[in-house]
Amino acid sequence: MTPPTPGRAARAPWQTPGAPAPSDAGRSVPAGVPTEPGTVRIAVDLLGGDDAPDVVVDGALRAVRADPDLHLLLVGPSEAADVVLAALDPVNRARIAVRPVRAAVRMSDHPSAARDASTVRDAVAAVRDGTADALVSAGSTGATVTAAALGLGRWPGIRHPALVATLPALTGPVVLLDVGGSLEPRAGVLARHAVLGAAYAAVAHAVDAPRVGLLSVGTEAGKGDRVRRAADPVLAAEPLPRNARYVGLVEGYDVSSGARADVVVTDGFTGNVLLKAVEGAYAMAGGPPAGGGAPRAAALLGVAGTVVVCHGAATADDVASGIALAAHLWRQRAADQVAALLAGHALKGHDHINDTEVTTP
Amino acid sequence: MTPPTPGRAARAPWQTPGAPAPSDAGRSVPAGVPTEPGTVRIAVDLLGGDDAPDVVVDGALRAVRADPDLHLLLVGPSEAADVVLAALDPVNRARIAVRPVRAAVRMSDHPSAARDASTVRDAVAAVRDGTADALVSAGSTGATVTAAALGLGRWPGIRHPALVATLPALTGPVVLLDVGGSLEPRAGVLARHAVLGAAYAAVAHAVDAPRVGLLSVGTEAGKGDRVRRAADPVLAAEPLPRNARYVGLVEGYDVSSGARADVVVTDGFTGNVLLKAVEGAYAMAGGPPAGGGAPRAAALLGVAGTVVVCHGAATADDVASGIALAAHLWRQRAADQVAALLAGHALKGHDHINDTEVTTP
Repeated sequence: MTPPTPGRAARAPWQTPGAPAPSDAGRSVPAGVPTEPGTVRIAVDLLGGDDAPDVVVDGALRAVRADPDLHLLLVGPSEAADVVLAALDPVNRARIAVRPVRAAVRMSDHPSAARDASTVRDAVAAVRDGTADALVSAGSTGATVTAAALGLGRWPGIRHPALVATLPALTGPVVLLDVGGSLEPRAGVLARHAVLGAAYAAVAHAVDAPRVGLLSVGTEAGKGDRVRRAADPVLAAEPLPRNARYVGLVEGYDVSSGARADVVVTDGFTGNVLLKAVEGAYAMAGGPPAGGGAPRAAALLGVAGTVVVCHGAATADDVASGIALAAHLWRQRAADQVAALLAGHALKGHDHINDTEVTTP
Repeated sequence: MTPPTPGRAARAPWQTPGAPAPSDAGRSVPAGVPTEPGTVRIAVDLLGGDDAPDVVVDGALRAVRADPDLHLLLVGPSEAADVVLAALDPVNRARIAVRPVRAAVRMSDHPSAARDASTVRDAVAAVRDGTADALVSAGSTGATVTAAALGLGRWPGIRHPALVATLPALTGPVVLLDVGGSLEPRAGVLARHAVLGAAYAAVAHAVDAPRVGLLSVGTEAGKGDRVRRAADPVLAAEPLPRNARYVGLVEGYDVSSGARADVVVTDGFTGNVLLKAVEGAYAMAGGPPAGGGAPRAAALLGVAGTVVVCHGAATADDVASGIALAAHLWRQRAADQVAALLAGHALKGHDHINDTEVTTP
């Protein structure tokens, strides 16, 4: 049994928007037991993203219509939330709550980054105070990561939470991390990504005995830059959870194909660029493969709560997918389970705390 | 007028394999004037690549049949070269010469890396002594780069030659560099890549006023890791050849789409991973777009000669494409023209010689 984390305790539907968090007393499902479907309450940052609030409103509507057990807490201007409410019948409308932006933040007064940061902080607060189970934002990734880390707290030993994307592949899902959380990790952080990725693949995607690879420029030992050459033996020595095993170096092809690994470990710079390159290639090729394209939503691992970050240029479908991912992760208790697996696998040979960026002058 | 470089002087067909390089006296085309078609002589490393010599033999045959002005110097075991000769009629056979591997190197006696290194050194020697105009190898990239740098010499100020790949995009070709020459360049090297890439796009692909972008995780200034943040202002201040202009930061999508840049500058680690990811995505999407997929051959810029490196897992078509690229580059005198443009654009704000890798302890 893992200790409860903020945002985990309360799962009952809203009482009144802005009211105190509902008590957990009447819930019928014991904590820690995955139920899918099951009621889940997602805080949605209406002002996050390049095309907010319109695409977020549209995405929220699609998500609500697709999942009858989904409740949304819309965080942002009342006018945007009203569009959602007006589009729904009374039964579905009952699944929507609104947390208006603070009076001081008016859209016209602030540059988009400031607006993003303000609404995502309110969404984080909703998870922290138990009004929501999880949050979704298409705003600035940096602002979301910072707000979540400060508002929800980080797991022990985690300085930079990791962004995790899942790509559909022929053999099943491929978990890619990091895709933008920490751009210049040391070898020890890459080793922790391996643990996180293996746990996430098993917990969130039911991958049995995940194969974990380290992304490099060739598959033979010794291929790669200094951090990859340093990380390869560290990963090889690392105990991995859920019967995962380290398969060594993998290459760019493997992220789309899944032929060699279920989990691909890399730094946030390379992962971010690669994910967007795959998306661009699918667009060039006339569309993604039947199994789905590059994801436009990523899970944030390392903060004490369920947080999904959508691409800044997210479409309504992308926002709806991000909300569905957050609901799935909450129903699986993925964040808690991954945190417990990480805590149970103390990393050998390096210092957890020493996961700062490389600091070349 | 650029100074002649080794491998540039002689263009007449072979006399006898192993004979002294033919004199340049009777040539009808003045040096430095592009002619296409025009006779071109390519040294091909028969032992380079995972499936050598079979796919190289097959690729060489395809290349010879596709280009009536192409002559090949096959460097490798006589038995493999004999397969090529036996498959051709006497007229086409006259376009093939053979440089057998040295007696000491028998295929069964050496691991593949040693064989690669030996035959690619012989191919480099053929370019150096004027028996061939250019060389193509699908062997180890590192061995090819080292052999070419040592055997042909490097351009002034170049420590790590760059590998340059060209991707077909909607708007025209996109030049991506580096894709594996130098894995951890400093900002100054990225700035030189910008000059090289702009020159190459203009010379090799006739791109008018190339747009040059720096690959990062977002387009706003300040996005990226330390080397990207350092390089962005350096590139912005850099004079670029052929009316090229720096457009700032670009993202992974732009490599396939070409929407924002004709030249995408990155480090060799990211470029290599990205190129393979795009290839994998096209494979997943059921095949590359109509314009063509991710290239499996790259030009080596920074050595005094025309060198093309094919993917280790090259197919016969890939080898044929690599040979065709080498022929095109020689006919355009691309290496000489790019070298001249680089020499004419002294880089500001950093030291050419100081292009060592980052040396974090």
